[in-house]
Amino acid sequence: MSEVPRLTHVREDGTAQMVDVSAKAVTARAASAAGRVLLAPAAVAALRDGTVPKGDALAVARIAGIQAAKRTPDLVPLAHPVAVHAVTVDLAVADDGVDITAQVRTADRTGIEMEALTCVSVAALALVDMIKAVDKHARITDIRVTAKSGGRSGDWSES
Amino acid sequence: MSEVPRLTHVREDGTAQMVDVSAKAVTARAASAAGRVLLAPAAVAALRDGTVPKGDALAVARIAGIQAAKRTPDLVPLAHPVAVHAVTVDLAVADDGVDITAQVRTADRTGIEMEALTCVSVAALALVDMIKAVDKHARITDIRVTAKSGGRSGDWSES
Amino acid sequence: MSEVPRLTHVREDGTAQMVDVSAKAVTARAASAAGRVLLAPAAVAALRDGTVPKGDALAVARIAGIQAAKRTPDLVPLAHPVAVHAVTVDLAVADDGVDITAQVRTADRTGIEMEALTCVSVAALALVDMIKAVDKHARITDIRVTAKSGGRSGDWSES
Amino acid sequence: MSEVPRLTHVREDGTAQMVDVSAKAVTARAASAAGRVLLAPAAVAALRDGTVPKGDALAVARIAGIQAAKRTPDLVPLAHPVAVHAVTVDLAVADDGVDITAQVRTADRTGIEMEALTCVSVAALALVDMIKAVDKHARITDIRVTAKSGGRSGDWSES
Amino acid sequence: MSEVPRLTHVREDGTAQMVDVSAKAVTARAASAAGRVLLAPAAVAALRDGTVPKGDALAVARIAGIQAAKRTPDLVPLAHPVAVHAVTVDLAVADDGVDITAQVRTADRTGIEMEALTCVSVAALALVDMIKAVDKHARITDIRVTAKSGGRSGDWSES
Amino acid sequence: MSEVPRLTHVREDGTAQMVDVSAKAVTARAASAAGRVLLAPAAVAALRDGTVPKGDALAVARIAGIQAAKRTPDLVPLAHPVAVHAVTVDLAVADDGVDITAQVRTADRTGIEMEALTCVSVAALALVDMIKAVDKHARITDIRVTAKSGGRSGDWSES
Repeated sequence: MSEVPRLTHVREDGTAQMVDVSAKAVTARAASAAGRVLLAPAAVAALRDGTVPKGDALAVARIAGIQAAKRTPDLVPLAHPVAVHAVTVDLAVADDGVDITAQVRTADRTGIEMEALTCVSVAALALVDMIKAVDKHARITDIRVTAKSGGRSGDWSES
Repeated sequence: MSEVPRLTHVREDGTAQMVDVSAKAVTARAASAAGRVLLAPAAVAALRDGTVPKGDALAVARIAGIQAAKRTPDLVPLAHPVAVHAVTVDLAVADDGVDITAQVRTADRTGIEMEALTCVSVAALALVDMIKAVDKHARITDIRVTAKSGGRSGDWSES
Repeated sequence: MSEVPRLTHVREDGTAQMVDVSAKAVTARAASAAGRVLLAPAAVAALRDGTVPKGDALAVARIAGIQAAKRTPDLVPLAHPVAVHAVTVDLAVADDGVDITAQVRTADRTGIEMEALTCVSVAALALVDMIKAVDKHARITDIRVTAKSGGRSGDWSES
Repeated sequence: MSEVPRLTHVREDGTAQMVDVSAKAVTARAASAAGRVLLAPAAVAALRDGTVPKGDALAVARIAGIQAAKRTPDLVPLAHPVAVHAVTVDLAVADDGVDITAQVRTADRTGIEMEALTCVSVAALALVDMIKAVDKHARITDIRVTAKSGGRSGDWSES
Repeated sequence: MSEVPRLTHVREDGTAQMVDVSAKAVTARAASAAGRVLLAPAAVAALRDGTVPKGDALAVARIAGIQAAKRTPDLVPLAHPVAVHAVTVDLAVADDGVDITAQVRTADRTGIEMEALTCVSVAALALVDMIKAVDKHARITDIRVTAKSGGRSGDWSES
Repeated sequence: MSEVPRLTHVREDGTAQMVDVSAKAVTARAASAAGRVLLAPAAVAALRDGTVPKGDALAVARIAGIQAAKRTPDLVPLAHPVAVHAVTVDLAVADDGVDITAQVRTADRTGIEMEALTCVSVAALALVDMIKAVDKHARITDIRVTAKSGGRSGDWSES
């Protein structure tokens, strides 16, 4: 990773542009992403006991994540519209917070990693909103793509 | 923080509801949030040299963050609509990535912490999108509220 | 109700326009709405048993309704933007379907009945989507405002 | 309809997920939906006379319905994005209200029934908004899919 | 107009930021904007005869403009959210095209000129879309603010 | 251009409808559009000197245009959803204002001219917003399609 890849789409003046994917093939593509929300013990207890004041925090976060995956091109300025064909989001309560994982699939012309990352990020934001009356110091951390398949650049996954 | 605060708005059945803020006063409120995007050296170099293939990554991230702050109630299911009256976003390139900070202000009936967090999160997502052709392992981390003022619950800031 | 009320805002050419509410006072306003989704026995059983294939249908419907309340001016062309300050949605499974009720509150310049109706309607749509693999003949019915308070036109409720 | 269909996509924990349609074929699909808005005689008269205070109610409702069809995946949390390729909406004024029918077509990987239902529902909401100064007791009713074609599950229509 | 006004909100690094209006007073504000769509004679004739293939072009344009006024802060990155309290749009068919005028009102903390301009611009876009099967060379022109009232900077109007 | 083309999709009652494109082939399509923002000398100088009070006006306008291209079907009521596969926007500062050009590409079932026009229009609106503290009389003008390729109706470009 010591060199910047050369793209034919680079603009000489350095201005932002949405690169052309119209000639790429429609193929099956998938991506996974993960992240964590670090929480105080009282917040973890409220999640485990189902006593979060604003209601069912995990369900709200899951649905927010699914909806955000569909809204990625509206949030990320140069992201291409991608037809999101499947989304699963899992939230697992751990002793120090909540682990969030998401898997996203499509059959389209470009990768779907940004949709997976957006799904995890917004699920995390929604979780923080639900729990903030209990813990105003929640921290969203370690959001990254964990696996990718399909497309020309090859499959890979976090070991 | 060893006890869950009591809210009069809690629903006995634990279902999610948007709590009532209509009787709260319109007052000046502000919040700051921060986060980081950890990047490989090649990506940091591309940012510093202005050679990111998709264009001006820092400007795109900044604008994405500002727009996302305004769209917070559309992304976070139980967040109240808040009139966002000011947003500043700063992205500082460091040796191991980019530090993102945001300040948001309003004169409204409820706090604006979620807007600050959403601003930082979406700025981070947009930055990852811009740089992903150079570094597919970018990691978004340490997103949290760093200061808050206004409202009944008191002012505070990260020491 | 035998006469059309006279509004000073009427346009002689009959074209659609958003009437002026800028001079109205900011006051507390609330509205309730209700509706039903009629379902086959298998669908009611799936809801009661928690075996709906796509997941927790009632939670999804509730959250969809809350979010739609906030998006009313984006859906209803001449609706004024209103700051939605509280939303509660209840879904009660009955023998022949699901009863949906919503209450919405604001402190703003115009009424919030459309927000209550939109909340119920979109909660109903989301419920139909969740259950349609089980019952493709779901029917949304009896959506109406059931009570209103605040504003110049007086309070009322369905007897 | 006495048994819940088995879907391979069911999650054991009952959480909501967007099921995978990426392997389904792109085929022509269509759906029709219908519904009614029940109105007081004064409102029916205003529609027939073109004297609705806020303007051309039927045109506003029709356009609101078309736009809502396109926005279905944004409103219905687990709905897949579908490329809406045709929408027709008809509003017929009857003695006791307005009959709304919609037809929606696509060439995509999943059915378009939710788009047809959303189109009718939002056209109805927009109509209620236009007429509410004349009739605050409008009632939206009998919204259902009336016909469907394309896809593996077979064609059918309301007899 | 020979000098750039000094704003205290200017950032030394020249980056884009949403300036702070939270301390400004809520006052009545209004703005008018105008523009034209230049059309071929066949298109003007189709508008006058009501034979535009896609349907009632003027109604569609009017409604698109009203909705766009409400969506201004979502389209214009640094625009503040403003509560749009009234919108009127007029389209007058002339021999060489269509004249569009819009008036927008609010009681809020900042001006509403961008809402008026966005209203006219999107009404023009919608009109071009309706008529493009008849005239593919439609031209949108002369969009500008024509009058403004309210706020500290004084009232003015195009003479 | 002396006759209105006959479309089989015309509705006898003249109501607006989204015409059916589901049977059209997915082919490569492109469109270019252009427009101008006329500005006072002080505004041109501020753009050239990089001293626009609200920040980097050209970058904001460019990004606003790209995002608007993706949002075209949400703004233009009867526009079909089109998968935007590439967008480039250029803003050139001239002595009397800024020239805006955009190129948009897709592989889809219908043309992408409206996306190109929307891109230029919203880039122009964003530019006006950035510069309005310096020049409140900015004028958006001469927005039109300048070239089109792909689809049955043939290629053409402004000579």
